[in-house]
Amino acid sequence: METYRKRRGALASRLADEGVALAMFEDTEGRRDPSIRYFSGHPGDALLFIAADGRSLLVPWDVNMAAAMARIEDVVPYTDFKRSPFAAMAGAVARLGIAPGSVVDLPSVTPYPMYVDYVEACPDHDFRCSEEGSTKAAAALRAVKDADEITIYRAVSAITDAAMDEIEAGVRSGRLASEADVALFIERYLRERGCEATGFETLAAGPSRSFGIHAFPSYTAAAFATEGMSILDFGLSYRGYTSDVTMTFVRGRTDGKRAEMIGLVKKAHADAVAACRPGVRTRDVALIADAVFAEKGYVMPHALGHGVGLEAHEAPAVRSREDNEWVLAPGHVITIEPGLYDPEAGGVRLEDDVLITETGYEVLTHARIVDLG
Amino acid sequence: METYRKRRGALASRLADEGVALAMFEDTEGRRDPSIRYFSGHPGDALLFIAADGRSLLVPWDVNMAAAMARIEDVVPYTDFKRSPFAAMAGAVARLGIAPGSVVDLPSVTPYPMYVDYVEACPDHDFRCSEEGSTKAAAALRAVKDADEITIYRAVSAITDAAMDEIEAGVRSGRLASEADVALFIERYLRERGCEATGFETLAAGPSRSFGIHAFPSYTAAAFATEGMSILDFGLSYRGYTSDVTMTFVRGRTDGKRAEMIGLVKKAHADAVAACRPGVRTRDVALIADAVFAEKGYVMPHALGHGVGLEAHEAPAVRSREDNEWVLAPGHVITIEPGLYDPEAGGVRLEDDVLITETGYEVLTHARIVDLG
Repeated sequence: METYRKRRGALASRLADEGVALAMFEDTEGRRDPSIRYFSGHPGDALLFIAADGRSLLVPWDVNMAAAMARIEDVVPYTDFKRSPFAAMAGAVARLGIAPGSVVDLPSVTPYPMYVDYVEACPDHDFRCSEEGSTKAAAALRAVKDADEITIYRAVSAITDAAMDEIEAGVRSGRLASEADVALFIERYLRERGCEATGFETLAAGPSRSFGIHAFPSYTAAAFATEGMSILDFGLSYRGYTSDVTMTFVRGRTDGKRAEMIGLVKKAHADAVAACRPGVRTRDVALIADAVFAEKGYVMPHALGHGVGLEAHEAPAVRSREDNEWVLAPGHVITIEPGLYDPEAGGVRLEDDVLITETGYEVLTHARIVDLG
Repeated sequence: METYRKRRGALASRLADEGVALAMFEDTEGRRDPSIRYFSGHPGDALLFIAADGRSLLVPWDVNMAAAMARIEDVVPYTDFKRSPFAAMAGAVARLGIAPGSVVDLPSVTPYPMYVDYVEACPDHDFRCSEEGSTKAAAALRAVKDADEITIYRAVSAITDAAMDEIEAGVRSGRLASEADVALFIERYLRERGCEATGFETLAAGPSRSFGIHAFPSYTAAAFATEGMSILDFGLSYRGYTSDVTMTFVRGRTDGKRAEMIGLVKKAHADAVAACRPGVRTRDVALIADAVFAEKGYVMPHALGHGVGLEAHEAPAVRSREDNEWVLAPGHVITIEPGLYDPEAGGVRLEDDVLITETGYEVLTHARIVDLG
């Protein structure tokens, strides 16, 4: 309860600073937003209202789920508003005593037609909907993991590490021989250890497909870890938080181009991780990996990493684009995932999750490039 | 090629009728829209522009994927517009010669801040964004499956039926004993038969969880098909189109409440299916099931069904809410999925996919309530 109250309080302070009286969050099909889970513990469809004075209101689709999981002082069933978000907005404004003329902030993904309907439902309030509003503020809060979240990350990282050990053993023994073997092993393993699901669709790409950054379909019945380079990119979701790791399996001759690519990816991974500490721009971390590759004439076709949390991709960004202004801070959990891809040689990627500490970094997971000989 | 051209032509006619010069579709993370696949064959991230004169332009993120899969006359890489949708809009308006002052229709889910940026990028055009625009028109077109799509539906239905036979045999033999056993059998089976993925997350809920309409997590390591009623709700995605079926497994005494619930669900399923034919309102089909349940004092807590296609839930709606005005037409593919749920007795649901023909209906799949004795 206290954790969620603190999180809502942090947002409320920001609202007060910015002269916003009320912020709404929406989690529904087509517009998923785990910020509601972050602020209230409620994991499903709902609207959440947080006022600048710290009060809040949850409007869940499923009141039984809310009774079991939500940690918040006030809950009104969505059916009380005839399942209309506009009626719920009007109800929340009244219930929380939001003064006429004050500013109400909508999620940045609110469709234009819905924006118009919110304004009609509450004509006396000043609605704002921008990329700079509470959606961004919530993302910034969620980027810095608190003690409860770091505890969860240690747990999901340990399960992920154990899974990688089992996968390596299974591939070496020949028990996991196809892309589907590996992906379905993960699905079973995580459920036997209390995880909810994968954090995203497992990518298992054998040698014929590993040159694609994200092969489609994400896994097939085709062979895995045969001659060449195979990529396995997966994450486990535990209490809502996802890990995200990538292993590469190499079989056969690794001299020449493959050896060079593998060496560069390992060096980019090590150098980038070693540069992580509070106060460093994530852009500068990404530029370190870019430089490792550029020296040998390679270009990485994707970002170096990203934040992880209740979403597989969240703040902070970890990429070398000039518009990236994120600076590392204690509590950030980011991926470092350098990769190189070649239509002939195949693809190689190595990805771990890294927690930024007060003084530097802690590598949470221990992915590897497995040489099968 | 011809199929996609026809589909774009059908939309272009509607645009012309409504005085709209250009419609845009967007498929990207957070705003997935398979309408782009429907109109062009391109299955990934992209913008698609269709003009009222029938010309069109695809702006894909991945030009290699477009070269392999898109069937459309004009393709410009997103990078040519510096990966800005607003620059792409300005470019499309120029390339397709959309006259100043004419109406450009945006997807109904366009976020308010993006709407503002589109208007800024093309100040001489009249942007519209409403629930009644091209998003709805595309949904209406997609609801009526053409010959190519019906061929795909016969194929995916046959694979789904074969999977159900294997699942029943596996559960009867004890080989599929946990929720994960059943769900992972499906994952492997579909990939071995050329399907892309499941159409949605498989729901396998053993007797302790089957009273929930959509149990969370969707499957666990817990036992399946032990004493009581277990529900299995799954779909297979083949060339983008998903099937959607639900089986129920019953073990142990079925006298009393369970027997009554099972009998009512079977009757609701049979009566609702039998009522399907062109010209019938889907609301009236749903009311038939409601009446079967009401006679014995039961209420179904969800809609009777929904359209299926490139999305697991699409038009037409099949529910008894008063605002449902859909009328069945040849080419509709809908689910019929009556269900009853009781915290003590558990849940029972029976779901099949039904094609509306010129004269009536054809049941595409053959789900069942399996009595394990």
